[in-house]
Amino acid sequence: MSETSLLKDMIDALKLLPGVGPKSAQRMAFHLLERDREGALKLAETLKEGVTRIGYCSRCRTFTEHETCRICKSPSRKRAQLCIVETPADVVAIEQASIYQGLYFVLHGRISPLDGIGPEDIGLDLLEQRLDEGEIEEIILATNTTVEGEVTAHYISELASARGVQTTRIAHGVPMGGELEYVDSGTLTHAFQGRKSY
Amino acid sequence: MSETSLLKDMIDALKLLPGVGPKSAQRMAFHLLERDREGALKLAETLKEGVTRIGYCSRCRTFTEHETCRICKSPSRKRAQLCIVETPADVVAIEQASIYQGLYFVLHGRISPLDGIGPEDIGLDLLEQRLDEGEIEEIILATNTTVEGEVTAHYISELASARGVQTTRIAHGVPMGGELEYVDSGTLTHAFQGRKSY
Repeated sequence: MSETSLLKDMIDALKLLPGVGPKSAQRMAFHLLERDREGALKLAETLKEGVTRIGYCSRCRTFTEHETCRICKSPSRKRAQLCIVETPADVVAIEQASIYQGLYFVLHGRISPLDGIGPEDIGLDLLEQRLDEGEIEEIILATNTTVEGEVTAHYISELASARGVQTTRIAHGVPMGGELEYVDSGTLTHAFQGRKSY
Repeated sequence: MSETSLLKDMIDALKLLPGVGPKSAQRMAFHLLERDREGALKLAETLKEGVTRIGYCSRCRTFTEHETCRICKSPSRKRAQLCIVETPADVVAIEQASIYQGLYFVLHGRISPLDGIGPEDIGLDLLEQRLDEGEIEEIILATNTTVEGEVTAHYISELASARGVQTTRIAHGVPMGGELEYVDSGTLTHAFQGRKSY
């Protein structure tokens, strides 16, 4: 083998990235060595800095290197609405749509008794505290439509209704521009059950 | 935006990797933060170590952290054969086929006057020294079949013949298991021109 042990280490380390197999990892390693050593050093530095310093927002649990994230700190957000999502990536997706002006709460997972994931593991104790503060008037559930996502949504709606907080769920149905022909039957079922008068 | 500046730095740095766009970079960053911070630190450490310590073999110019690479040092390789390839990835591919027992010479490119890449830029001065040493009896050309690859191959064959060294070129034709229907016309042309008596 022409691979030096250090080169092999590089390729193995790159394989830790999601969606990167042996071939891509090799291509990445050769690319960095051949054309972008400076970029590799920058990447190394940034990764180290990132995973060392980025923690969770004390209010909404999304990723931030500060005590509280930008959204939670922002004076322009509506503090009476709280959108519950499973991951920080969901926050990014909703923010990109520029439709929502309230706050978020990130679960980093969903209730899943089979995997031993209970309410405390997804920060619902923190959510209860938030609800007890009395600032939140509407909980918007944006968990996924998996079984676990629905269980989680149901659990949270119970917490909310016990405190007289209104709970809504984002609409599920045929995506805009989607063609019926290609839409899965679960989505179609939702779309029919959730039909509105026209 | 919920993205912290540090998180944005991480995503931007991951985009330096070949084949990684904004979406994949975001997925990678979130994956590392959510599930594999230890792996991220390891990756950072290995990348830094790799690009700092991996250089070029003084004999064949492939990547190695030593003065001379494993293949050049190996006593079991045939020292009379020298296979010329464009990249270290080509060496890996040939080694994986376990067909070749000689040595390599890595160009890290090809002659390309339009891009200002001349013979010295791809180490041909070093190759001339190798040929002058008199150990090499056969040069096996394995450069790509692009215009630049062919020009490079031709140039090297001239260097070799001037020193009475035999030059061969690896065969090009229809790949094993390839169906004629899907083979490009350039390959078919090669396959017909290079036909052998049966």
